[in-house]
Amino acid sequence: MTVGDTSKAFGRVLRELRNAASLSQEALALEADVDRTFVSQIERGIRQPSLATIFKLAAALDVKASSLIAKVEKAVG
Amino acid sequence: MTVGDTSKAFGRVLRELRNAASLSQEALALEADVDRTFVSQIERGIRQPSLATIFKLAAALDVKASSLIAKVEKAVG
Repeated sequence: MTVGDTSKAFGRVLRELRNAASLSQEALALEADVDRTFVSQIERGIRQPSLATIFKLAAALDVKASSLIAKVEKAVG
Repeated sequence: MTVGDTSKAFGRVLRELRNAASLSQEALALEADVDRTFVSQIERGIRQPSLATIFKLAAALDVKASSLIAKVEKAVG
């Protein structure tokens, strides 16, 4: 498992949860108080979130941060 | 919940798990492939880990990243 694998898995999970919540990248960014471009970069796996950003994104998606990370673990495989 | 609260909670949980594993900061740093000073700063809550660092620290401590984050959620309260 490399850093890139984890970032890509996180990005896929984030996009999936965002789509399930019917939120645009803009809406999620606003709700989580992060830049819209940062959301886009995270979803593409080219930037990785910090601990605080993980918690903010999870809260904005109404899921626990630990549940979000558990999904990433499954996605990394 | 602020960014600082989450970082401080992560630091407390990390120190607790590291002590439970009877590892020094140096040993954990070596095992997780991060700087020893970074481990110290994370434990004091003055720096926060990235997604990749969370996964590396969890692996070095032989716990799941999602379990580590679940402990942080409890510690934040």
